[in-house]
Amino acid sequence: MTQLLRVQNFNVSSDGFGAGEGQSLERPFGHADPATMFAWAGATASWPNRTDPGGSRGLDDYLVRDFHHNIGAEIMGRNKFSPQRGPWRDHEWKGWWGDEPPFHTPVFVMTHHERPSFTLSDTTFHFVGGTPAEVLERAREAAQGKDVRLGGGATVVRQFLDADLVDTLHVAVSPGVKLGSGSRLWESPEELLDRFHCDVVPSPSGVTHHLFWRK
Amino acid sequence: MTQLLRVQNFNVSSDGFGAGEGQSLERPFGHADPATMFAWAGATASWPNRTDPGGSRGLDDYLVRDFHHNIGAEIMGRNKFSPQRGPWRDHEWKGWWGDEPPFHTPVFVMTHHERPSFTLSDTTFHFVGGTPAEVLERAREAAQGKDVRLGGGATVVRQFLDADLVDTLHVAVSPGVKLGSGSRLWESPEELLDRFHCDVVPSPSGVTHHLFWRK
Repeated sequence: MTQLLRVQNFNVSSDGFGAGEGQSLERPFGHADPATMFAWAGATASWPNRTDPGGSRGLDDYLVRDFHHNIGAEIMGRNKFSPQRGPWRDHEWKGWWGDEPPFHTPVFVMTHHERPSFTLSDTTFHFVGGTPAEVLERAREAAQGKDVRLGGGATVVRQFLDADLVDTLHVAVSPGVKLGSGSRLWESPEELLDRFHCDVVPSPSGVTHHLFWRK
Repeated sequence: MTQLLRVQNFNVSSDGFGAGEGQSLERPFGHADPATMFAWAGATASWPNRTDPGGSRGLDDYLVRDFHHNIGAEIMGRNKFSPQRGPWRDHEWKGWWGDEPPFHTPVFVMTHHERPSFTLSDTTFHFVGGTPAEVLERAREAAQGKDVRLGGGATVVRQFLDADLVDTLHVAVSPGVKLGSGSRLWESPEELLDRFHCDVVPSPSGVTHHLFWRK
């Protein structure tokens, strides 16, 4: 059975940035406001951080609740895991997600700097070097037949696109958000149309879902 | 945890019919052509009857692959199970689906006529009388905490809507198909707007998905 590499619920601004500039402990998305860019997802019944029983169950909810379906591992970039750069100064930092990270699978953090694996609840973080193809091979093995999620940021998604390793992408474009600079996914979604089919689906919530799959 | 009652991937013509008139062994949907009405679903990668590895992975595929997610039982009408009417003349008929029915859960067939339960592969069919609320209670118990799918046909969906027991509905409307008569779901989707939110999502494939959830 094919194990796909899937980008899911990845948010970009109208000008194609997944995050702004100046990432810090206080601002994981730099000068971008994640509350605005994730508002469509936060309004759904399936949003993992929801604390009340409400929430919408329309189009956006289908996309949010698919986040976990048939996913056995995640690959993410160093900057999604941490605002630190260079060698790991301490091992106290364990990601932005507290004691219950929302992944529930092995997670492979791409980094040139070694660090021991650790486990929080049912998520284990591994720190791995190597090419995208090598990291994907490790993640596929860990996923035990299920698909692998490519979690971003934009730089990592670009690396895997350039290596032609991505099978499907769901990118939610926020038409009202313009960042000007930061971590760029694309100049335009049309860049991918040589290799991918694309459904462009405007959601009643205001974002425009772009659903790509290989030709 | 709430156990929802969900209508999923239910197809209707532009004039609101889920099936035509004159159901028979050869024509489970009467004078309606299921190949036309299901074409959008059959083109997806997740279509259960697909025999080759291809298929689209855009919007329609999200809806098709959600069919099984978190479903622990199905309720269906007698006419979805069989073209026979009245008392069961023989017990040889075991549904339209062959030795591997696509449900993989307990299925509750609503009928006034008794018949013993039987199992095909991992699907067990039970034949039950009673009100919609009574049947739903049995299905919820069998679903062991998961949601219950309301499988149709249109008459049964209407019964559960009239009893205010339905939590979410996904109805795919085929704009190019007009039936004129048959088993009617609605005159217009607007009939449900007093009780339900609705996302109307035109798919690039041509059908218009209607996604309802309770207000």
